[in-house]
Amino acid sequence: MKKIREILSQKNIDALLISDEKNIYYFTEFSGGFKLLIPIDGECVLFVHAVNYEAANEMARNARVDLIKVGEKAEVKILNEVAGYRFKSIGFDRIDAREYLKIRGSLGDIRIECMEDAIWSLRKIKDEVEISLISRAANLTSRGMKRAFEIIKPGLREYEVAAEIEYEMRRSGSSGIAFDTIVCSGPESAFPHGGLGEREIKEGDFVIIDIGARYHGYCADMTRTLIIGKPSERQKHIYETVKEAQRLAISQTTSGVRAREIDETARKYIANEGYGEYFVHSLGHGIGLDVHEPPTIGPVSEDIISPGNVITIEPGIYIPRFGGVRIEDTILVLKEKIMKLTEIGLEEE
Amino acid sequence: MKKIREILSQKNIDALLISDEKNIYYFTEFSGGFKLLIPIDGECVLFVHAVNYEAANEMARNARVDLIKVGEKAEVKILNEVAGYRFKSIGFDRIDAREYLKIRGSLGDIRIECMEDAIWSLRKIKDEVEISLISRAANLTSRGMKRAFEIIKPGLREYEVAAEIEYEMRRSGSSGIAFDTIVCSGPESAFPHGGLGEREIKEGDFVIIDIGARYHGYCADMTRTLIIGKPSERQKHIYETVKEAQRLAISQTTSGVRAREIDETARKYIANEGYGEYFVHSLGHGIGLDVHEPPTIGPVSEDIISPGNVITIEPGIYIPRFGGVRIEDTILVLKEKIMKLTEIGLEEE
Repeated sequence: MKKIREILSQKNIDALLISDEKNIYYFTEFSGGFKLLIPIDGECVLFVHAVNYEAANEMARNARVDLIKVGEKAEVKILNEVAGYRFKSIGFDRIDAREYLKIRGSLGDIRIECMEDAIWSLRKIKDEVEISLISRAANLTSRGMKRAFEIIKPGLREYEVAAEIEYEMRRSGSSGIAFDTIVCSGPESAFPHGGLGEREIKEGDFVIIDIGARYHGYCADMTRTLIIGKPSERQKHIYETVKEAQRLAISQTTSGVRAREIDETARKYIANEGYGEYFVHSLGHGIGLDVHEPPTIGPVSEDIISPGNVITIEPGIYIPRFGGVRIEDTILVLKEKIMKLTEIGLEEE
Repeated sequence: MKKIREILSQKNIDALLISDEKNIYYFTEFSGGFKLLIPIDGECVLFVHAVNYEAANEMARNARVDLIKVGEKAEVKILNEVAGYRFKSIGFDRIDAREYLKIRGSLGDIRIECMEDAIWSLRKIKDEVEISLISRAANLTSRGMKRAFEIIKPGLREYEVAAEIEYEMRRSGSSGIAFDTIVCSGPESAFPHGGLGEREIKEGDFVIIDIGARYHGYCADMTRTLIIGKPSERQKHIYETVKEAQRLAISQTTSGVRAREIDETARKYIANEGYGEYFVHSLGHGIGLDVHEPPTIGPVSEDIISPGNVITIEPGIYIPRFGGVRIEDTILVLKEKIMKLTEIGLEEE
């Protein structure tokens, strides 16, 4: 809260009106607020619908809770209250165009500025509490992955594998899943975001398993690719290429390096092995309250890796009508070292 | 596709540029498109990042797939292509203010109109395929709920109950959960969106269980409230009030009735029993690809219930520091009758 006010002061903004639910959670530790007003000084106001009012009163931090009654028009109420402050300038995070036009119309000649990047500049540096929650999420994710290794066999359907993974994460204490579980087998493993279906896993399949547990709002993200039965030479080469690309990228990851250089390392290695056209996504992404957040680890990223970043490193090769391999871990960057947070502690092939 | 073009023609709009992922899925049956352009005539274009390109080529319907290459600026590419059509007017669904301003700047004096409501007017009338997918989701949800009834007992933690429910839905074939599972016990059941935590369930608790399975993109939604052990008189009265409010509301639900009148029926009954101030949300909502979508069943709704609507009816009473009760079912509205899609087939108390 102190940091965001410093930024407001630097940018000469009188207040921030936050809409994004993750941003609201970040500042108040409460899920279910509708808008959060952070004036440059004075009390913050969390606007909450009746359905969440009692919970907000008990749980929200750093803000006074203001009730939007059943039947009351939320936007009208909030704009009226904001108008009362007579701010000269106001910052927003992410707002819908319709809402923007209403605000523009209602607040007259106030200066409006997008402050999304300023909030990301805070959120991408995790503090100790956030790191411990992400570590726990990563630990739960690793347990889910270990379970997948134990049970996978020909004849199981993709959704059955997902059931076992999610069950293991849940009963170990996860607050839910960070994103839709991917268990993608056979030729469809060539679709990087293939989801999962009813396909029966067969001998000779690649099976991409991409999962994440959530713990108290914070996400982890991990992918392993299994080969069912004895791998072919081509499968082995693709797998080893991805694995080595990940190892090289992780070994280059350290505070101060450009994110785009890490991407380049993995991309070049994969290209040299002959699969350049089949690595069709960025190498990785920041992770926290959102599964995908800054910094971006990709070919056009402007980010520099910094202590407190938590990122994924996830090279992949996807060969249409043949299959795909992706290997991904969640990595914590500290001042002097990095730590792999996802780890199942098995010899993985 | 034919219907949306009729609407474009009525409103004199040359094309629709769709951003919302559920809307894109609705028209293309593909998850993972970035934007969908629907010109009033001629071929539709689905803009897709490289990561989803192969999958889109195989799975997307009703549109030509156009690749956004790794490193290419998606918005620039799309705005350039759209400019090539020389549309005089263009409709949008939901767009971010930043993006709106870019489009506004780049497309010059083109007329821009929000067409979100027009798309909702289609989406809220489900066709036969959609109804069968929602029915399956409702059936899977009911199985999860039945499992909760079987296993719940004092000493279990909320997340352990969630684990069993989600496991049952998953291995029965669900494509995932429609929203974060709620298992909320004891005094915290007074928080309608209480989520779940690590609390141990105790004798005398209310336990609100609010769950939904997803099946091929389509959601169901169901809530039951259990009383652990012998209910007190007050608990019994609250429970019976909610149950009767739901029965009355459902019996009034039929094609042609105003949604706000259904809400009023339940709200009045609850108020007459002395709990008016504790029913702090709308009675229900439409459900489909989104968990919450039009029509709204609430005190200020303008919607009229129509054949093909799928809605929830979910009255609740939440007494701070005491506990809460909510009972919810997913209801299909047909021309001549309605059908309760969520049903566990047990005497439920």
